Amino acid sequence: MLQTFLSKTRDQVSTKIKKYINKSNYVEEIMSYSALAESKMIRAALVIASGKINKNINHSSLITLATAIELLHTYSLIHDDLPSMDDDDLRRGKDSSHIKFGEANAILAGDALQTLAYEVICDDRSLNSNHKINAIKMISNACGKNGMVYGQYLDINSEAKDFNKNIIEKIHKLKTGKLIQCSVLLGQISNEISIEKDLLKSFGEKIGLAFQITDDILEVISNKDTLGKNINSDQKNCKATYVSLFGLDNAIEKSKKLSYSAIKDLEAIKSNNINILVELAKYISYREK
Amino acid sequence: MLQTFLSKTRDQVSTKIKKYINKSNYVEEIMSYSALAESKMIRAALVIASGKINKNINHSSLITLATAIELLHTYSLIHDDLPSMDDDDLRRGKDSSHIKFGEANAILAGDALQTLAYEVICDDRSLNSNHKINAIKMISNACGKNGMVYGQYLDINSEAKDFNKNIIEKIHKLKTGKLIQCSVLLGQISNEISIEKDLLKSFGEKIGLAFQITDDILEVISNKDTLGKNINSDQKNCKATYVSLFGLDNAIEKSKKLSYSAIKDLEAIKSNNINILVELAKYISYREK
Repeated sequence: MLQTFLSKTRDQVSTKIKKYINKSNYVEEIMSYSALAESKMIRAALVIASGKINKNINHSSLITLATAIELLHTYSLIHDDLPSMDDDDLRRGKDSSHIKFGEANAILAGDALQTLAYEVICDDRSLNSNHKINAIKMISNACGKNGMVYGQYLDINSEAKDFNKNIIEKIHKLKTGKLIQCSVLLGQISNEISIEKDLLKSFGEKIGLAFQITDDILEVISNKDTLGKNINSDQKNCKATYVSLFGLDNAIEKSKKLSYSAIKDLEAIKSNNINILVELAKYISYREK
Repeated sequence: MLQTFLSKTRDQVSTKIKKYINKSNYVEEIMSYSALAESKMIRAALVIASGKINKNINHSSLITLATAIELLHTYSLIHDDLPSMDDDDLRRGKDSSHIKFGEANAILAGDALQTLAYEVICDDRSLNSNHKINAIKMISNACGKNGMVYGQYLDINSEAKDFNKNIIEKIHKLKTGKLIQCSVLLGQISNEISIEKDLLKSFGEKIGLAFQITDDILEVISNKDTLGKNINSDQKNCKATYVSLFGLDNAIEKSKKLSYSAIKDLEAIKSNNINILVELAKYISYREK
């Protein structure tokens, strides 16, 4: 069931991305290369699965919000891969953007992908303007100087020797967690029931951290071909990971515990439509790529 | 009169920027270094002067929109200065962001400045949500893959030998003109009179091109200390300019003609409040820095 849902989500979001990035100029070609590369689109799936819980937002608007999140995620990957940052030459199973198109073009494509995310939301035909503004507010808060960008800053500017549980959890929550949590909450943009939103906020924070810990685990137990990216990146950049700090078994246990606890949050919501989100929470901790 | 207006605008926009970038973390320090560096803030002045023409938007909202534009302009300067782009080490009279903080941090600060521009608009207390969405739409259109970013792409990827009047005007209009035109139109966000908007659209396009031609002129007749940036940048990067293509005298004449024609557009608007915008149009072509 989950694989069908993920596949349908990927198709619908990709179709929407293609409407905006139709390769009418070369910047769009560079953007499209990364935005339409093979990807699980977990964040898009979270937006849509979350929106299905209480069904007060229509499907096409969920696709809009999911598309915005994937554009933002792609921009962050392109910039994170740059030589001055993580210097990764492989992403989504092919050359990173700067390897394929050069550094300047990769920076510009990332910049334009960020801009496009906001444009896509503005263009939506069924969300009202208040909801659009709330969505943009949530996104800019999750992505900016107190969210994803701050996490990436701490990640590249911290020395591995200074890492401890607090700092690594902080980095994971900011760099990866904020956008994942934001994805879950975007699906709730028109929900007014604060107790449900609080539970989903907690759910989103837990699966966000679980996602990054699982990424750390896969860097150790998986391989380049399966992941579509280099597996020695953290080691090369002298970065501590959850695994290097606490060992593989503890990391696996932590990720599973977070996913279990997140599902408990979900189950407290009075809705018959939590199944896909439950499946996604499990997948985030148990995935193999 | 104009200098007082510019100075007041700078103070008010800087105060607003400081509210958002209060150096509570190091990313904010990096952002603040560039966003609060000495600057004419012409784009902010255009937003406010345009908004005063028909007075159907309050002053604090004009400051909000002006702040967003300056944040976006600053992000674009930081990224344009990067080694892989124009490789400029001097900006606004001091070291460029990447010289001061390193390349990765400069990229991140630029990214977060872009994000912040949208956040600032969402937070405004007197603009209604429809106007906010329209503002974000206009901005994302001016900045993105069919606007400023595309202009920068063409600028760094075109060979000087291929430059002709059409291509250089296209680059100037996209790279510099779109954001300047957008500044003028943002001041009109709540104006419903399309004939006035059309005149201001034409005005904005003309002063946008005049601004960049004047920049090209100043690169030749001014000096590093006055401009606060290196004057040999275009030559170093083998870029053609309006001056290198048509000669200094023709470039000066073109800039003045554009400014004169832009003022004619303004004068067709039935308002007693066009004076500051007229002064700004003259300043854009006749400025010495």
